[in-house]
Amino acid sequence: MPRVYLAGPEVFLPDALAVGARKAVLCTAHGLEGVFPLDAGLDLSGLAKPEQALRISAANEGLMRSCDAVIANLTPFRGVSMDAGTAFEVGFMRALGRPVLGYTNVTADYRARSEAYRRSVPQAALLDADRPEAEIEDFEGAENLMIEVAIVASGGLVVRTAVPAGQEMRDLAGFEACLAQAAEILRPG
Amino acid sequence: MPRVYLAGPEVFLPDALAVGARKAVLCTAHGLEGVFPLDAGLDLSGLAKPEQALRISAANEGLMRSCDAVIANLTPFRGVSMDAGTAFEVGFMRALGRPVLGYTNVTADYRARSEAYRRSVPQAALLDADRPEAEIEDFEGAENLMIEVAIVASGGLVVRTAVPAGQEMRDLAGFEACLAQAAEILRPG
Repeated sequence: MPRVYLAGPEVFLPDALAVGARKAVLCTAHGLEGVFPLDAGLDLSGLAKPEQALRISAANEGLMRSCDAVIANLTPFRGVSMDAGTAFEVGFMRALGRPVLGYTNVTADYRARSEAYRRSVPQAALLDADRPEAEIEDFEGAENLMIEVAIVASGGLVVRTAVPAGQEMRDLAGFEACLAQAAEILRPG
Repeated sequence: MPRVYLAGPEVFLPDALAVGARKAVLCTAHGLEGVFPLDAGLDLSGLAKPEQALRISAANEGLMRSCDAVIANLTPFRGVSMDAGTAFEVGFMRALGRPVLGYTNVTADYRARSEAYRRSVPQAALLDADRPEAEIEDFEGAENLMIEVAIVASGGLVVRTAVPAGQEMRDLAGFEACLAQAAEILRPG
């Protein structure tokens, strides 16, 4: 059964394991094996923080290399864009030539979200690249073009779904649409 | 001369080419060839937006594959974290086994920045993973651990530099420190 790495910031939710388990069940229904970052089941007790981080990173990089594709949760996380760790993982799998797919539960374009962010932050608090003179990329995408194009070039399409407030990291309709794409792309010859 | 891909959101500055040129000069001084994403010099006139995005992505992926290392600007961009496109590129080079180095011109930990973000956004506007019950990773890093550890595992160290307000994307002291790391790591034999 093809293995799919389940990238996304839902690992930070208090019910992360439950969300991962729900994703895994949906994977199975599509003939895929879901691999959630927390699956490594590391015992980090007693380790210093840098060592903990090193073990988690090594485990996740190993899990990625063992997978045939990635489905990434691109929903904005603590700002305009997706989680940086998830973006790292999308690039990682892209470089390995594995299909990358993605969904977001916020429907607005990257451009519209960036403009809203600029309006929401006091001018004096804006870093220089956040100021009005800096360009906001405008390719009608949901995310930075490196991510958007990696998905399209994989044979997928970024799935955008409007969900009820507070369900942005838990609604799995977009994830299921990605699973259908992954199953199609990974189907044997 | 080893080639170093210069990843960062300064490509969106109005003076992007000048910043890239300054970085390239510093690279040469360290015996390295700087490769700025805008170096591809693409002619995108007359192309539809999705096609433009595709060409830029293909050019950048090609430039990355032609490079021996990446130095990434990790300075926060439109939110708590670094630019998502840059995070993608760090992951991309990491998967290829090329050294990844990085600097940020905001010195606060990822944890402190996330906490400040939560306080700054009206509760009702917080997406679910931004709410207080979601975990904020706490490994004393400047960024998500996948990025921080990739740099440490490359033999580098994330460089944090306090810079004057409004110079976050232009101050190159941290970049120079990364160049010294890159020159050391890439030095033959």
